[in-house]
Amino acid sequence: MERAHAITALAGENIESVVSVLDAVRVSGATTRPEIARVTRLGRNVVTDRAAQLIAAGLLTEGPLGRSTGGRAPRELRFNAAAGVILVADLGATSIEVATADLAGSISNARGEAADVTLGPTHILSRVAELFDELVDSLPGDAHVWGVGVGLPGPVEFDTGRPVSPPIMPGWDGYDVRSFFASRYHAPVWVDNDVNVMALGELRGGLAAGHQDVVFVKIGTGIGAGLVSRGLLHRGAQGCAGDIGHMAVGESTVQCRCGQLGCLEALAGGHALGRDGLELAHSGQSPVLAGELAAGHEVTAQSVVDAALRGDPAARRLVTESARLLGGALARVVNFFNPSLILIGGGVASAGDLYLSQVRLAVLGRSLPLATRHLEILQSPLADRAGLRGAAFMVVDELLSPAGLSRTHDQLLIS
Amino acid sequence: MERAHAITALAGENIESVVSVLDAVRVSGATTRPEIARVTRLGRNVVTDRAAQLIAAGLLTEGPLGRSTGGRAPRELRFNAAAGVILVADLGATSIEVATADLAGSISNARGEAADVTLGPTHILSRVAELFDELVDSLPGDAHVWGVGVGLPGPVEFDTGRPVSPPIMPGWDGYDVRSFFASRYHAPVWVDNDVNVMALGELRGGLAAGHQDVVFVKIGTGIGAGLVSRGLLHRGAQGCAGDIGHMAVGESTVQCRCGQLGCLEALAGGHALGRDGLELAHSGQSPVLAGELAAGHEVTAQSVVDAALRGDPAARRLVTESARLLGGALARVVNFFNPSLILIGGGVASAGDLYLSQVRLAVLGRSLPLATRHLEILQSPLADRAGLRGAAFMVVDELLSPAGLSRTHDQLLIS
Repeated sequence: MERAHAITALAGENIESVVSVLDAVRVSGATTRPEIARVTRLGRNVVTDRAAQLIAAGLLTEGPLGRSTGGRAPRELRFNAAAGVILVADLGATSIEVATADLAGSISNARGEAADVTLGPTHILSRVAELFDELVDSLPGDAHVWGVGVGLPGPVEFDTGRPVSPPIMPGWDGYDVRSFFASRYHAPVWVDNDVNVMALGELRGGLAAGHQDVVFVKIGTGIGAGLVSRGLLHRGAQGCAGDIGHMAVGESTVQCRCGQLGCLEALAGGHALGRDGLELAHSGQSPVLAGELAAGHEVTAQSVVDAALRGDPAARRLVTESARLLGGALARVVNFFNPSLILIGGGVASAGDLYLSQVRLAVLGRSLPLATRHLEILQSPLADRAGLRGAAFMVVDELLSPAGLSRTHDQLLIS
Repeated sequence: MERAHAITALAGENIESVVSVLDAVRVSGATTRPEIARVTRLGRNVVTDRAAQLIAAGLLTEGPLGRSTGGRAPRELRFNAAAGVILVADLGATSIEVATADLAGSISNARGEAADVTLGPTHILSRVAELFDELVDSLPGDAHVWGVGVGLPGPVEFDTGRPVSPPIMPGWDGYDVRSFFASRYHAPVWVDNDVNVMALGELRGGLAAGHQDVVFVKIGTGIGAGLVSRGLLHRGAQGCAGDIGHMAVGESTVQCRCGQLGCLEALAGGHALGRDGLELAHSGQSPVLAGELAAGHEVTAQSVVDAALRGDPAARRLVTESARLLGGALARVVNFFNPSLILIGGGVASAGDLYLSQVRLAVLGRSLPLATRHLEILQSPLADRAGLRGAAFMVVDELLSPAGLSRTHDQLLIS
């Protein structure tokens, strides 16, 4: 706890230069005080003073002597990613994943379990807290929780950490997720939509690193997107930007859970694939899926993807039709948002190139040539836990930025 | 010229604090050194030193004594918007508008004329330069051009000031618009897409002030949008974000100039309205438009809008159908981008509430309730010259920001 407060002590009048010095080491890779002075354009005395503050807060450590450039060899400074521990949770419609992370966003001790988000916030968050407590108990005695990051499967008002009318999370509307964890761990808490968090994970430590304008698409049960504009998450006015699942993609009699007809999600999402796959199994049009059903297995989106990858023609048609519809929707997104990268993640994307090549074809067929000239469309590596990493970066970015340090300070005064 | 160089002298090691002090006066409205110290969290001595630099550069002036709060009354500092003059031009498909602006974005000496952008950059830009020269000649002898801002009717690579494959500007692809003006006026030059510039004009000094997430739609001959994310323009990877004109909005046999069928612009833009209006005139379905034609007047989008406002039923149907199609496209934009404000400008928007109420209806009919809960859809006041004002703010924002000052410095070293 003391460390969590030590960091907020940095939020004084020199906050801009303190963070500049930290960023010079942490982000730009400067290691000596003269290098830091060059990168930050701060005076040598200022750099020395701010570095001393950061060493006292545990964020920088003094390393061995660096190379001499003529005079006395300068000491190397290093970012101490182990100074603090962050607790992260990624909640899906049917799952909880938790882990610890260091201040560089590296994930440890990840574990997950099935959970039904419709059971409501008290039930689900209590279970997350139990899992967090186990993680905390396993930490070394001097480790301190510096922050908590949570991804939720619905729109979130980022400034307050409260879900806003989340469609698949009954009972969660307006729930104070931040206070729930802040009071338990006496640490600042940030909460965001799971797809935003995944986009952030890819942006800060994944395939999207170095890109400024990115669309991250998750095709799970539903379909959603996380948007990056000029290197920052675009959350929108109510925190619900990136909703491509309810884009109208053609004439259809299939009603979406939102009440409309012809929504992308109702035709191309994981739920739709499972529903249509079950029909193929019942009708016998898909021998592979009929076999699954006969063997007593449930027919899910994943079974359809697996059957398609095994060459089952009917399952393949379902998968490529989903990709074609998604590609058509993304063509509009490309013209409107002009990203340099589209990353596609979520269970259905595990169909890999079978899926991606059809998406690419549909995007190219309807987008403006200029907008696709340098556009990459790639699969987000599923195993890489983009959600947990993103939740960690969400906390690190807030903790170690000038505005974030002020907000951290405010949160700790209140909690 | 000396003044233009005086400002770049500010781009030294104290640049962050210099701009902080300037912003405290210019944007936050602080007037005394103690107030500036409070707003910026800089020390009193630092504020005094940076204020002296800004006074020397002509950006701040020392005013009368402020109110005493007990001790010696502090002197008031004021932002000197008249320190520099900016030349601005807003180029459309068929028009040139030019003006001068001060450093607060206030427009003076505006004048415009018809011009055909397809005549190519040498012809059009030479004419802009002639108009600029007349403006410069009319300035007081001690006035200095601090920067040039230009809006163009096509995608622009903002960092270099070059058009990128602009569809309605043959001969302009890759043309170095920046150098053309930089060499003439020895001042830094910024160039952007006209709709982005208009969006910036509304954001920094118009109806969008205070909003973070905005979509500005221009329905002229074609249809385009300028996007604002977290208070900054979202230009996209190739500078062509906001292209909603070629969004597919339904089955149609009308071919767009882009080669596709069913584009929003080909069905609902100004060109489409003029084309369909002429048909109504020829067929006699619209008595008002038939009368225009008989009187030897050209039937344009504006004639259709005027006829609709005079109650002509057939013209009214054209206008409301355009609004319905635009609203359907904007519903997708609302779900995807979640703006708090949509501003609609351009000639067709002069139909006012007849148009806007139909757009609102179509947006509400297909958007997610959460995304429209606090959404405003308003007409951009046409008379307010959002394009010229935006071009001025584009220059001011660049000139008076830390990154912009560095780039200004680089531009002046090169030119």
